[in-house]
Amino acid sequence: MMSAEADSAPLPIALDAAGGDHGAAPNVDGAVQAARAGVRVLLVGERVALHAELGKFPGSAALPLEIVDANDVIGMDEHAAGVRGRTGASINVCTRLVKEGRAAAAVSMGHSGATMASALLTFGRIGGVERPAILTHLPARGGMTTLLDAGANADVKASYVAQWARLATVYLKVLEDQENPTVGLLSIGEEDHKGSALVIEAHALLRGLHGHGINFHGNVEGRDIFLGTTDIVVTDGFTGNVVLKLAEGEARVMFGWIREALSSGLKSRLGGLLVRGPLRGLAERMDPSTYGASILIGVRGLAFIGHGSANATAVKNALLRAARAHEGKLLPRLEAAFGAQAGKIPQ
Amino acid sequence: MMSAEADSAPLPIALDAAGGDHGAAPNVDGAVQAARAGVRVLLVGERVALHAELGKFPGSAALPLEIVDANDVIGMDEHAAGVRGRTGASINVCTRLVKEGRAAAAVSMGHSGATMASALLTFGRIGGVERPAILTHLPARGGMTTLLDAGANADVKASYVAQWARLATVYLKVLEDQENPTVGLLSIGEEDHKGSALVIEAHALLRGLHGHGINFHGNVEGRDIFLGTTDIVVTDGFTGNVVLKLAEGEARVMFGWIREALSSGLKSRLGGLLVRGPLRGLAERMDPSTYGASILIGVRGLAFIGHGSANATAVKNALLRAARAHEGKLLPRLEAAFGAQAGKIPQ
Repeated sequence: MMSAEADSAPLPIALDAAGGDHGAAPNVDGAVQAARAGVRVLLVGERVALHAELGKFPGSAALPLEIVDANDVIGMDEHAAGVRGRTGASINVCTRLVKEGRAAAAVSMGHSGATMASALLTFGRIGGVERPAILTHLPARGGMTTLLDAGANADVKASYVAQWARLATVYLKVLEDQENPTVGLLSIGEEDHKGSALVIEAHALLRGLHGHGINFHGNVEGRDIFLGTTDIVVTDGFTGNVVLKLAEGEARVMFGWIREALSSGLKSRLGGLLVRGPLRGLAERMDPSTYGASILIGVRGLAFIGHGSANATAVKNALLRAARAHEGKLLPRLEAAFGAQAGKIPQ
Repeated sequence: MMSAEADSAPLPIALDAAGGDHGAAPNVDGAVQAARAGVRVLLVGERVALHAELGKFPGSAALPLEIVDANDVIGMDEHAAGVRGRTGASINVCTRLVKEGRAAAAVSMGHSGATMASALLTFGRIGGVERPAILTHLPARGGMTTLLDAGANADVKASYVAQWARLATVYLKVLEDQENPTVGLLSIGEEDHKGSALVIEAHALLRGLHGHGINFHGNVEGRDIFLGTTDIVVTDGFTGNVVLKLAEGEARVMFGWIREALSSGLKSRLGGLLVRGPLRGLAERMDPSTYGASILIGVRGLAFIGHGSANATAVKNALLRAARAHEGKLLPRLEAAFGAQAGKIPQ
């Protein structure tokens, strides 16, 4: 049993400790790192296995880590709908801990669809938000670009996109201390009249919100995501998911080509050795684990969804980010933004 | 006046010689290079200006280059609809030369929308093709990926996507000697049931075409474009345009970061000098000018559309590609594929 409410320490983060392609190992490793940085973590999963994994980290017994037993886990190849009946599945235990006020946030590197479904079913939506979205980050000139929806909704309405712009604006204020982040609407031309029927409608809504909760820059194109033209880029979940996976795939293939180029011929190999350090720094910059996980934004609870292939660094960063979101009172601030503005501004 | 029909030489390619961000210079330069490689070119634009530009290339008088006078040009910032009334605009002269059998293909680095509109109005559509698409190429592991629609149609029907798969298959057979190219449908998961409503419908159509004009691999994700999972990737023109511009933007920003990384500190700078050659090779591989221009496929005439920022190499490669398409009888083969198969296979 836990005693999260009993003491005055900040609430722990519930980690779906068996979730992801590599099982418990990177989750426990990342949790240990986060705990060392002062974040309390509940490891949700099979007690015996997690205990054994924790034993590999000397001194972990003294860290603010607790195990919460859960013997079922939604496999990566199962259907997300399975979440509904399986109350004992680790992801459902995580979201229930949050719902009951015993954890600050749920974090999972497991089945994305199952995590979304569990969070939506358990938390419900923030009033005024029609659909939650996956908010993620991509590296960009001058920092990073925040992109949403990265894949929660394949078919969307313009009103969703407008709501996502408002949610992301609050998110960047709380998590990144950005006072007035700019919002771009992803399109196929910068002109207002260009784009799909959806984009043209969303453009009009976003234009109406400018100065009322968002700082609308106008349409942006695919290239602007890496150029960092705006802080936030909003789009439907189909395009956003393609963007995210294309960006990762291109970086991976380009680094492969660079490695190839620097390993053919003596001169290149020597040069390659000399530039190894800076290139590794660049690879880290392109690495999705830097940002840890994406938030499912728009639900009435904090839920973070990571890559199935997440390593310990990604898990640690996700846990730190989740703790920061809770400390910054992200959820009440999102609710206030929607509650206070309802009726005053065009939906 | 020209004498294209009079002799037995292959038909020339009509180049919109004033089109693009940099005016006549890269067009004329590229045309000279293509002519030296044996391609006949009609330079369509202001005679005096083109004559002056040609004068910069010693020996160009002996090359198979002719000027066709056109004093009007659709500016890069004008509306594409302007094409309709302006019969004397260079792009309209180009497409009319093709329509009249005096040129094999029209090539323009100018206003993309105007080029599409002019080609569609002048040529009409191939029977059985509801909408023409922009077919383009992206670098990929093992070669390149052919992507369409890269931006002609922001809102599409599933039947368009199925037709584009058939067009692209014939294109790769003719232009790249690929006997049975694989087709992937861009989605947000490899499973058949994942994706937008459009994708799910298109998937069923493509499945029905498998073995009847196309070699359908199934759904692919954003990362597969660079991994080269399939030879062809079909998608709507909104997503395709975002993909194209994102891919270019990411490559540009990554190369900027590489340059930065290799110019800080003596060791890196020295290493940078040693690896300059291989990295330049990689930059060339990522350079859109390698492929020259994209074809507007599905119209009853050959039209190639390039980047506004095209350099002479891109112009040359576009002209060579256009000549190859004509020599390979691309258009009759596209028409035959649709004509012969109509009624036999599911539309």
